[in-house]
Amino acid sequence: MTERTLIFPAQEYRDRVALLQAGMDAQGLRALLLTTPADIFYTTGFLTRFWESPARPWFVIVPQVGDPVAVIPSIGADLMGRTWLHDIRTWDAPDPRDDGISLLADTLAEAVPAQGRIGLPMGLETHLRMPLADFDTLRKRLAPRGFVDATACLQRVREVKSEAEIDKIRASCTIAGRAFARVPEFARAGRPLAEVFRDFQIALLEEGADWVSYLAGGAGADGYGDVISPAGPQPLQRGNVLMLDTGAVKDGYFCDFDRNFAIGPASDTARRAYAALRQATEGALAALRSGLRACDLHAMLCAGLEKRGATPSGGRLGHGLGLTLTEWPSFTPLDETPLRAGMVLTLEPGCITGTGRIMVHEENIVLREDGAELLSPRAPADLPEIPA
Amino acid sequence: MTERTLIFPAQEYRDRVALLQAGMDAQGLRALLLTTPADIFYTTGFLTRFWESPARPWFVIVPQVGDPVAVIPSIGADLMGRTWLHDIRTWDAPDPRDDGISLLADTLAEAVPAQGRIGLPMGLETHLRMPLADFDTLRKRLAPRGFVDATACLQRVREVKSEAEIDKIRASCTIAGRAFARVPEFARAGRPLAEVFRDFQIALLEEGADWVSYLAGGAGADGYGDVISPAGPQPLQRGNVLMLDTGAVKDGYFCDFDRNFAIGPASDTARRAYAALRQATEGALAALRSGLRACDLHAMLCAGLEKRGATPSGGRLGHGLGLTLTEWPSFTPLDETPLRAGMVLTLEPGCITGTGRIMVHEENIVLREDGAELLSPRAPADLPEIPA
Repeated sequence: MTERTLIFPAQEYRDRVALLQAGMDAQGLRALLLTTPADIFYTTGFLTRFWESPARPWFVIVPQVGDPVAVIPSIGADLMGRTWLHDIRTWDAPDPRDDGISLLADTLAEAVPAQGRIGLPMGLETHLRMPLADFDTLRKRLAPRGFVDATACLQRVREVKSEAEIDKIRASCTIAGRAFARVPEFARAGRPLAEVFRDFQIALLEEGADWVSYLAGGAGADGYGDVISPAGPQPLQRGNVLMLDTGAVKDGYFCDFDRNFAIGPASDTARRAYAALRQATEGALAALRSGLRACDLHAMLCAGLEKRGATPSGGRLGHGLGLTLTEWPSFTPLDETPLRAGMVLTLEPGCITGTGRIMVHEENIVLREDGAELLSPRAPADLPEIPA
Repeated sequence: MTERTLIFPAQEYRDRVALLQAGMDAQGLRALLLTTPADIFYTTGFLTRFWESPARPWFVIVPQVGDPVAVIPSIGADLMGRTWLHDIRTWDAPDPRDDGISLLADTLAEAVPAQGRIGLPMGLETHLRMPLADFDTLRKRLAPRGFVDATACLQRVREVKSEAEIDKIRASCTIAGRAFARVPEFARAGRPLAEVFRDFQIALLEEGADWVSYLAGGAGADGYGDVISPAGPQPLQRGNVLMLDTGAVKDGYFCDFDRNFAIGPASDTARRAYAALRQATEGALAALRSGLRACDLHAMLCAGLEKRGATPSGGRLGHGLGLTLTEWPSFTPLDETPLRAGMVLTLEPGCITGTGRIMVHEENIVLREDGAELLSPRAPADLPEIPA
């Protein structure tokens, strides 16, 4: 029988829950209601790719005192039973009459007095993973108990990674680094981009990824149109810049970084853009300190690009990383989140290289009190060229 | 530059939208608001793995008349611009002050008169992929316009696949079938389950999958504890039954089926259970007709198992399939959805083989007027044995 042990000792999860409960106390919350894969994995260790099925909702309740309670479809009872939780309540889902809502309402009513408040992530970068009509029913069933936004309560805890978590993200980065080193084995002029994407995913698995949750990229003269596209059938051409950006997963933790390659000799435009991106990153790596804000890092990366004659692309220039491909904060002019030691972050400057054309460059780091520690193997100093 | 062409001709999407608009008319809806990867892929052809990032919401509005309008983060403008849509409105996300909500409210207000109703999937198997607090803001901004449940409106259209879609799902099933045929190359006693999972994903990619969104499975004497677990480090043992269940993706369309293998000679229990599962499936394949209900198929599979001395496991015994790993309807005693020609379905009987131990068996089919047409290559008649 498959005996999946927890990825971390139970104490790791107890520590997380204690931190959440301290935040709940500060906000006067009697319970947290969690519904997403990352929040549930974070508090329980429950790891499955079955989230890919949208059929069933899953709930974890963090009470003000004591261990979390899982209210889940019975199909997950065996796997949840192999985590550190002991109070696991199940129903046969999907049930069109009552898909766990009575069980959830009863469990929340036990944990929360009639005048109590229940925290739920409702803010930026969150969503509620359950049917909206069922949430309306739940809200009415639990009144006068009220639901309030607990986004910050979750984020302030999750955004600072433990050393155990940092080791896991470093492991994912190391795997992706080895796979990127093998790109010259299979990327060459004439090969369809779809085949390059396929071979890169195989390389990630061979190098130790449990699975590959994300791969995007592009190829074109002096850059690419965007950074979120899947591969098309078109072949790589001499003179292209190829970019691959991956979120490979090991033990539930993501890396998220990209690499660029010139197919044949790189153009001056591509070489200059690459150098500007790399040097702007180098500057930010040297200057990063806990105590800066997310928007400060954005400004730093933009200034670094402009100093080298490059035009920053719009959008965010990096973000948090860990249990999902991207986490808060966002390196934009608007995000004033303080950067704290223990945050795992991506630095992701992008610059415009032509009409509708950009290049991007990305590294993963953990922020320490005194500066950045790289988790991804640093990209080469010069744009690597693959003989065409 | 990466020129991603649409997977289907634009007419395919126009036909889908026309069907949705007919359903909207019947329900008196002036617009549909769509937020999930599958609903947006279905109506626009927009395919990206960037949904893996929870940072940004994405919106598509289907008006009562005319083509859909995309209201999306600017990072997606290039890729959405390569679909058939022409009205694409963007904002710089994530924006903590207003993450697209004003733009979305204005766009909906153009499409929907003040007394009009906006459809939103709110029912079973749905969720709203945007921050709940932003939805509350949107609801207030658009009042007196009201949001009503449009789950059925979407499901009655999406659940009947076009021939073009059926071809795509068949292609995914064929890829997975070739990969399953190679399992004896890498599954043997002494190999850790994690390595078998890794090699199987590599085989899926080598056989043509664009990516592998789902893999679960288990191994044990006479069966496994559940069907949703990732691999652990434990080695396969002589006498195990190994089960692998995959959702591999080609051109955005999923397969979803499993296969069982005995490591060394199979026990009588495992052989008998396998035969009962396969024969119950055979009976359902022969008896399936459009016009039956989902619950009828559940009853048929249970009766087929019991007739052969097997005890059906709880939970659903199959479901819809296509743009996500699982879709409605569900083969449970409670789901009365009529089965219609063009539905792509999984038949997935499970039976109890011991304490906390089950075996499952799964095939993918398309329902035709006169019966089931297999999309997955039929599982072997007898439980295949891999020499230990």
